[in-house]
Amino acid sequence: MTKFGRSQGDLMDLLAEASMKAIKDAKAEKKDFDAVYVANMLAGETMRQTAVASSLADRISLVPAAAERLENGPAAGGSALKNAYLAVASGAYDLVLVAGGEKMTTADTDVVTDLVATMTHPTAEYIHGVTLPAMGGMLTRLYMERYGLTERHLAMVAVKNHANALKNPYAHIQRACTVEGAMNSAMIADPLRLYYVCPISDGSAAAVLCPLEKAKEFTNKPVRIAGFGHATDVQAIQEREDPAVLKSVQLASKQAFKRAGMAPKDIDVAELHDAFEILEIVESEDIGFFEKGKSHLAVEKGATSLGGEIPINTSGGLKARGHAVGATGMAQVVELVWQLRGECGERQVKDAKRALACNFGGFGNNTVIHIFERGW
Amino acid sequence: MTKFGRSQGDLMDLLAEASMKAIKDAKAEKKDFDAVYVANMLAGETMRQTAVASSLADRISLVPAAAERLENGPAAGGSALKNAYLAVASGAYDLVLVAGGEKMTTADTDVVTDLVATMTHPTAEYIHGVTLPAMGGMLTRLYMERYGLTERHLAMVAVKNHANALKNPYAHIQRACTVEGAMNSAMIADPLRLYYVCPISDGSAAAVLCPLEKAKEFTNKPVRIAGFGHATDVQAIQEREDPAVLKSVQLASKQAFKRAGMAPKDIDVAELHDAFEILEIVESEDIGFFEKGKSHLAVEKGATSLGGEIPINTSGGLKARGHAVGATGMAQVVELVWQLRGECGERQVKDAKRALACNFGGFGNNTVIHIFERGW
Repeated sequence: MTKFGRSQGDLMDLLAEASMKAIKDAKAEKKDFDAVYVANMLAGETMRQTAVASSLADRISLVPAAAERLENGPAAGGSALKNAYLAVASGAYDLVLVAGGEKMTTADTDVVTDLVATMTHPTAEYIHGVTLPAMGGMLTRLYMERYGLTERHLAMVAVKNHANALKNPYAHIQRACTVEGAMNSAMIADPLRLYYVCPISDGSAAAVLCPLEKAKEFTNKPVRIAGFGHATDVQAIQEREDPAVLKSVQLASKQAFKRAGMAPKDIDVAELHDAFEILEIVESEDIGFFEKGKSHLAVEKGATSLGGEIPINTSGGLKARGHAVGATGMAQVVELVWQLRGECGERQVKDAKRALACNFGGFGNNTVIHIFERGW
Repeated sequence: MTKFGRSQGDLMDLLAEASMKAIKDAKAEKKDFDAVYVANMLAGETMRQTAVASSLADRISLVPAAAERLENGPAAGGSALKNAYLAVASGAYDLVLVAGGEKMTTADTDVVTDLVATMTHPTAEYIHGVTLPAMGGMLTRLYMERYGLTERHLAMVAVKNHANALKNPYAHIQRACTVEGAMNSAMIADPLRLYYVCPISDGSAAAVLCPLEKAKEFTNKPVRIAGFGHATDVQAIQEREDPAVLKSVQLASKQAFKRAGMAPKDIDVAELHDAFEILEIVESEDIGFFEKGKSHLAVEKGATSLGGEIPINTSGGLKARGHAVGATGMAQVVELVWQLRGECGERQVKDAKRALACNFGGFGNNTVIHIFERGW
């Protein structure tokens, strides 16, 4: 992956850099790729560029490989990986590149905030000016009232993720933060302050897929996709039975655990989609790592920190690794592959064997989960 | 599919209409769908709406089905079908909806022309103001100089496609045209006149996919996907070995014929991507229906007309059925399914058993081909 943050390059530069790193890592420079899957949300809107997968195939000389772009809001990365995986599983393709990328900092912050909001319900939400931080704020308030979550818990999640990011050279925000510092930061969408909200990042991340039986041709440390889950929910939050439940996360993780033949307790490390710190808390419950309404108590005990029961967002998460919307799903994958290979240095989870990525689109109406396992 | 043309509805209305028609046709109203694949090119740019697949799943009550949008320029439809097909082939999904849709007429014509051009090479082409009609014009000129194609041949293709569209109630342009009329129409991009260029359309088309062995639960006339091909080419036309050769069409069709165990002569009816009439001519050669540089002679003899050797674009093609970019690939599929089922009325190709769709992205740098066969 590229270092997340404000980048000098354009989208193609980012995608090409991450892709070439993945191809080199897989020692596949001289192989013919069958297909290229590109995850991207906003290239047309921010860069006036469409059909970016064709451009990437050309740029890094993978022509005539098949190429297509997946867009699924910030879950584009998960969608691209899933479809690449199913294409390999079908027998049609034997060598596939999956790359997620987004160039966000060319546009002004208010423009990006508006563009990201285009994934909300067009007539029930977007048209009324709702932004994603506003939705995050409302979910946080509900959790505070119902489950006794306090602002201090949000700050603790932020402190953990900033600390992890300090150990990740690819992270956007390389700055320690304290509970007091977070709680004194600017208010963004009450009760969400600056430190409970992810930054806007440029970045790209990529991986190479092949059938498991061919993986040994490329690496002695293959990582197996053990299972996936993918589910939608009704789009307008007002229409959900319980707005404090992320049903798509529940269903997608249930599917993924079933396909993998695993349970939440089998997972050693996870990357969750903390566009807002409340989401790390709610997702960790709806996936089944913690009981509903109890995750913040686990955070208090350090259960999700490095060395804890289930380290979450060792990369720094969206909060501190950064959130380049179309790239985020693949950035989660890259972190977990490194964890399973034992290549994470100071932020390594000891002997990590099984990992889970939760890539979250819309405001919870489209979730893609993947479970990975050491393949050797 | 919806009637192509200028529509009152928005993108979601179009996608929902086509999807519900497909679901009803498959008698699958009460079934649980596993996934929804949406093909769309420009929703973010023209309607400020992203993650449209999640919206569609919600709108037509397919939640919690997985959902994602494929964008591959005007080949988005082919890409969506391919990935849905591979997902079913992998064994992961048993019932999938594929819907392509585009709402183009909300934006001004010059805006749409510019947006479509965003699929060209960003620094070698787009930035210099090249449009797709300009590229079509240059390819036409080259064919005229090299192979003896005349404007009259382009007019004959247009006349044929307009005549077919008159027999297709879903076609955008319901108007007969004559060779003389076409040759006296306004110049768009020399030598391309109005009648050699597709219109800008709103529209949507959809299909339901399942494993072949389950198809009989839904219909007594299932259509089998016999094979697909998908290939890219270098993006900037100036870098291609021969700009008169659509290499991605050659490679994709070769793959498709190989997977299907068929040859061009086995195909009874085809839908080709005639965004410009020259493209129908060149594609029909690069697929292998006719020898290179000889297709216009076949057109003269009526080989591609109804009743001819290989009827092409019985729907009216992009020229007269219309071109709603993200929907076009699926509109081709719907026409061919109807042909194979014998449901095309006046434009029916007698006893059609095997059909081919060529969905063309960029200016020939990304082509998806599908071959269909009667499954009963």
